[in-house]
Amino acid sequence: MVDTASSVTTTSGAARATDQGAPQLNVAALADQLLGTWKKERLEARVTAAKPELHQVNGLSMDEHRTRVLGQLKILVDEGAIQRAYPTSVGGGDNHGGNIAAFEELVTADPSLQIKSGVQWGLFGAAILHLGTAPHHKKWLPQVINLEIPGAFAMTETGHGSDVASIATTATFDEATGEFVINTPFRGAWKDYLGNAALHGIACVLFAQLITKGVNHGVHAFYVPLRDASGNFLPGIGGDDDGLKGGLNGIDNGRLHFTDVRIPRENLLNRYGDVAEDGSYTSPIDSPGRRFFTMIGTLVQGRVSLDGAAAAAMKLGLQIALTYGSERRQFVAGDGKQEQVILDYQRHQRRLIPKLAETFAVTFAHEQLLVKFDEVFSGRDDSDQNREDLETLAAALKSLSTWAALDTLQECREACGGSGFLAENRLTGLRADLDIYVTFEGDNNVLLQLVAKRLLGDYSRKFKGADFGVMARYAADRAGDTVLHGTGLRQLIQNVSDLGSTGRSVGHVRETEYQRELLTGRVSTMIATIADRLKDASKLSKEEGARLFNENQNQLIEAARAHGELLQWEAFTEAVESTSDSGNKQILTWLRDLFGLSLIEKHAAWYLINGRLSGQRAEAVTAYVDRLVARIRPYSLDLVETFGYTPAHVRAPIATGAEKARQDEARAYYEQLRRDGNEPVHEKTLKAKKR
Amino acid sequence: MVDTASSVTTTSGAARATDQGAPQLNVAALADQLLGTWKKERLEARVTAAKPELHQVNGLSMDEHRTRVLGQLKILVDEGAIQRAYPTSVGGGDNHGGNIAAFEELVTADPSLQIKSGVQWGLFGAAILHLGTAPHHKKWLPQVINLEIPGAFAMTETGHGSDVASIATTATFDEATGEFVINTPFRGAWKDYLGNAALHGIACVLFAQLITKGVNHGVHAFYVPLRDASGNFLPGIGGDDDGLKGGLNGIDNGRLHFTDVRIPRENLLNRYGDVAEDGSYTSPIDSPGRRFFTMIGTLVQGRVSLDGAAAAAMKLGLQIALTYGSERRQFVAGDGKQEQVILDYQRHQRRLIPKLAETFAVTFAHEQLLVKFDEVFSGRDDSDQNREDLETLAAALKSLSTWAALDTLQECREACGGSGFLAENRLTGLRADLDIYVTFEGDNNVLLQLVAKRLLGDYSRKFKGADFGVMARYAADRAGDTVLHGTGLRQLIQNVSDLGSTGRSVGHVRETEYQRELLTGRVSTMIATIADRLKDASKLSKEEGARLFNENQNQLIEAARAHGELLQWEAFTEAVESTSDSGNKQILTWLRDLFGLSLIEKHAAWYLINGRLSGQRAEAVTAYVDRLVARIRPYSLDLVETFGYTPAHVRAPIATGAEKARQDEARAYYEQLRRDGNEPVHEKTLKAKKR
Repeated sequence: MVDTASSVTTTSGAARATDQGAPQLNVAALADQLLGTWKKERLEARVTAAKPELHQVNGLSMDEHRTRVLGQLKILVDEGAIQRAYPTSVGGGDNHGGNIAAFEELVTADPSLQIKSGVQWGLFGAAILHLGTAPHHKKWLPQVINLEIPGAFAMTETGHGSDVASIATTATFDEATGEFVINTPFRGAWKDYLGNAALHGIACVLFAQLITKGVNHGVHAFYVPLRDASGNFLPGIGGDDDGLKGGLNGIDNGRLHFTDVRIPRENLLNRYGDVAEDGSYTSPIDSPGRRFFTMIGTLVQGRVSLDGAAAAAMKLGLQIALTYGSERRQFVAGDGKQEQVILDYQRHQRRLIPKLAETFAVTFAHEQLLVKFDEVFSGRDDSDQNREDLETLAAALKSLSTWAALDTLQECREACGGSGFLAENRLTGLRADLDIYVTFEGDNNVLLQLVAKRLLGDYSRKFKGADFGVMARYAADRAGDTVLHGTGLRQLIQNVSDLGSTGRSVGHVRETEYQRELLTGRVSTMIATIADRLKDASKLSKEEGARLFNENQNQLIEAARAHGELLQWEAFTEAVESTSDSGNKQILTWLRDLFGLSLIEKHAAWYLINGRLSGQRAEAVTAYVDRLVARIRPYSLDLVETFGYTPAHVRAPIATGAEKARQDEARAYYEQLRRDGNEPVHEKTLKAKKR
Repeated sequence: MVDTASSVTTTSGAARATDQGAPQLNVAALADQLLGTWKKERLEARVTAAKPELHQVNGLSMDEHRTRVLGQLKILVDEGAIQRAYPTSVGGGDNHGGNIAAFEELVTADPSLQIKSGVQWGLFGAAILHLGTAPHHKKWLPQVINLEIPGAFAMTETGHGSDVASIATTATFDEATGEFVINTPFRGAWKDYLGNAALHGIACVLFAQLITKGVNHGVHAFYVPLRDASGNFLPGIGGDDDGLKGGLNGIDNGRLHFTDVRIPRENLLNRYGDVAEDGSYTSPIDSPGRRFFTMIGTLVQGRVSLDGAAAAAMKLGLQIALTYGSERRQFVAGDGKQEQVILDYQRHQRRLIPKLAETFAVTFAHEQLLVKFDEVFSGRDDSDQNREDLETLAAALKSLSTWAALDTLQECREACGGSGFLAENRLTGLRADLDIYVTFEGDNNVLLQLVAKRLLGDYSRKFKGADFGVMARYAADRAGDTVLHGTGLRQLIQNVSDLGSTGRSVGHVRETEYQRELLTGRVSTMIATIADRLKDASKLSKEEGARLFNENQNQLIEAARAHGELLQWEAFTEAVESTSDSGNKQILTWLRDLFGLSLIEKHAAWYLINGRLSGQRAEAVTAYVDRLVARIRPYSLDLVETFGYTPAHVRAPIATGAEKARQDEARAYYEQLRRDGNEPVHEKTLKAKKR
């Protein structure tokens, strides 16, 4: 990367600190660590993503952009880039983790390309794969893979997004003809926001209530042809274009509706539920609820890949903003001669460097998610427990990382000022495209509520019949201390032991175990507190129970967020522990401390109220965050270099050293002026002399 | 507005609560109050802004959008909508407050229209008005007003945005010809991001270092013709198109550079500094520093109008999201029959209703800013003190409101899910357009630092020679209590007096004086603390002093934010106090409490650390915020109605009752099915019966 005013410079992949004793960053080793388990697939995908023909072009009309992205999907097919996840029986690689790892790298080329690929192969194709059976795979997957059948994933309706179980489209079995009859009963039941629906989809996997013999067996998936060879809707099918969106305009999102559309019985994707010729329904899963969640659970890969794509977008944003921030100068400070590099301002460091730490946390947590995803989908460990863990982990991490990506890209945009607003510098476009990530594949708030319910469930299983005293002790055990909520006693003890010594306070807060204790204790106490408040819900009327639950909804979601933060912190800590290079281990430890202490700082009120942190220690946290951002600042360019993105991925003029060239030119101009004696004297200087 | 499930309905502008004793909202009276001092001008501008020919059209190319917005400016001219601020001598109305009030309403039509108007008449024209003198006014203003001269405001350079004093463009007086010679010495000195520069500007007000007789007198403004009648650059002038941006693409932002461009001496806008024929420089303001800030200060109206436009955008966003949230249903709750309206979920209320309260705060604070602006610019009170107050107020409020607008629009977007992402529903477009508001007319972080420096200056003037003990007492006086920082003593007293009674804790926190005490005490203590840390800076070397300042920069900016929040809260409180309608007074009090307590909740860690709030009271704050959002929820649709925007201003299909119509249709369908006995039985129900 470009040279900077920092005290650390990079030589052939390794960093050298000019300060004696400062740890050195081994860029190559950390870059390798970040690539993770599916390094090969990631590197292959980055070669693909670096190709200009796959890059987003600013200023295309929606129609041009849609056409371009469809063409890009064909390029991926030609490159053989998309078979990885499919079974060997249809020419695939049965490589689930590697497929997602490669797929999420496409976000650097164009998020529309990533998401349209995701619609085609991660949703439409994956639904046929996971919800269908061998005949379906044989019949359709080869053409899905080679894009002869572009398809839509017709699950969401205008009226139901988060609550998929309540969709209103029906597929009623007609015993007379052996067909399913698809119907859209009202406007709210139109399928909506579907990629490939407005233009390119010639088929879809349709989710509908399966009705046979007068019984509704719940939501099932069906393969439904949509358009004929000329691209016209088949009889009984209609639709609409969703038109321009806030981003992702390379994707032709649209609406679909169905009136007495007949499909053969065999088009039911029947892995988890089947209808025989006589109309009788059978399923390997007896409980309709469990069956539904099993079916939906097979589609978790969307959330997994969004989590990884969010990490990639954060890396791009920070590479752009930290590069610019290391070159840009504004306002004379100190010596009165040269303007100060803006990344040397404390505020600028405070804005960007905690987000750099968070990006590492998101990356390490995502790697663990991907490993678990691969375990389940490869069959290495697809126990119910592990599947459920995967779903909870995906829901928690996707929520946190997609929000973090928006916040990071916005902070990067603002940190680059007017140049950050130019489309060519990509920050606004990436943010606009990623905006929808926070509400699709599950609205983040709804996902976090699911996580919280899982936590409550685990909790109550563990403490069935226990009274609140036991629960509180559980929380206390995990926090490694007695809960003294409200009494302030523990806080006073901290005050006394830390008295007069910020150093001692800091010493405590930077210990790994202390951070773990605080973060873990918060989750368990929050869950215990809510569980206690809800413990009588079952005795209430349904309505009163719902009211009680609703009164705790906000805190419940905050508890899930705390859980997700803890998962990220634990993943980061495991990554630190597995790092062998001593310089990298030290610098990663600082980053992990910055991540952990930023969380504790953010939630300091909770820790103070609950007697887990004295005022003095809370102040020590803030002081130490200040010290950490300054300490990490000299490594910031090397750290973004470990992300491994090249100019072909970053493609922002302000991240190319252009600003440094301008600064150098300006400095040289003024120096020349001074040397030549042509510098005008300032009126201020004259006036000062006169005095 | 549309009917909802709320317990409050609107009848002819007045609200009626079905709960006995609930206060009633008088929509008409509150709407009138919100219109403020320049009601007439606002209403006129809203009539204008409602015209379809002024509305943003989604999906236009950048070129089409730019052409359309230029045409819209001509429509404004034809309507006589833009003379208000100009002097009567050139046909204006000399109505400064009314002009800004009207201007900021244009944001509802298209933010590009608002900002391009602002470039033409609020920056380019206003610079001629405020920095020029009578001959300039006579010569150019009529054609500026009627758009015969579209112009750019050429201040910012690629290399200098926030630090205007350091721009590098030079205007050197040539005594031989009596001309100024304009030069751009290097690439970083190109004028950049200027509206009207890429295409439409035929002249500009150029800011450059005025050099005469070998002396640089600092930044001055010059009138410089740019293009000939065919639209080609005049000799010596070149430029570039900034191209596509993250928003505001109806404006032709671009770059300009100058090589030996000669303009007559008379083109210096010479109100604050002049050059005689012999090249001698004179100014009515002796100090170059004060002169610079006086000149820049005349341009404060940009910040004032962005503050008002942010308020308008927040209103549009909330009207859309609260309308949709009152109609949209998702997930069955309680009775198990009907899905719940999403605004009845606590989380949804927590996401949107505090932002509704903040919108009122921003609106009332903006009204005070506008009154002060009018005082200064009408000459009713243009004392140095009042000018300085105006600038500080504008910097603080613009920063907070433009950030709040982005946060609000984003929360509204997410709260509307996929439909919020459709361009037709406007939330993404408004957010994209307003994104740049947080860094232009002053980067918000830089503006807040200016505010903080002013606070520090006031503070040190008041305590010249005082030691820290005096300063702390000052802080304590304002907070109405002794500062017991670190000892926890006050907190213990609170704990004891509140013991066992959340009701008593709540009773305290909802008192106006208690909120004032907390908010005021925080600002003064933060400033006192930083002042103490910086008190030795003058004894240090320049470099060490700068380092010390930098180590406190983040907290300094947070102190300025706290000051801005206090200003908003005080403005809200004054508005409540001036409300005569008793129902409105009660509901506004709840909103003000919600605004104040949300601030205290956000900063709870500070209050706890500094012994201003006990843990119990901090929890009471959160509990009361929960109660307030639920209490205000039934009024939310009536409250957005008081904003006074009609469907012609809102123009979002999801805010038209469309969702309610879909919900009604769905409900009717299922009811009919039941009545006809055609409802399929659910497998779940069958299984439950068998058990």
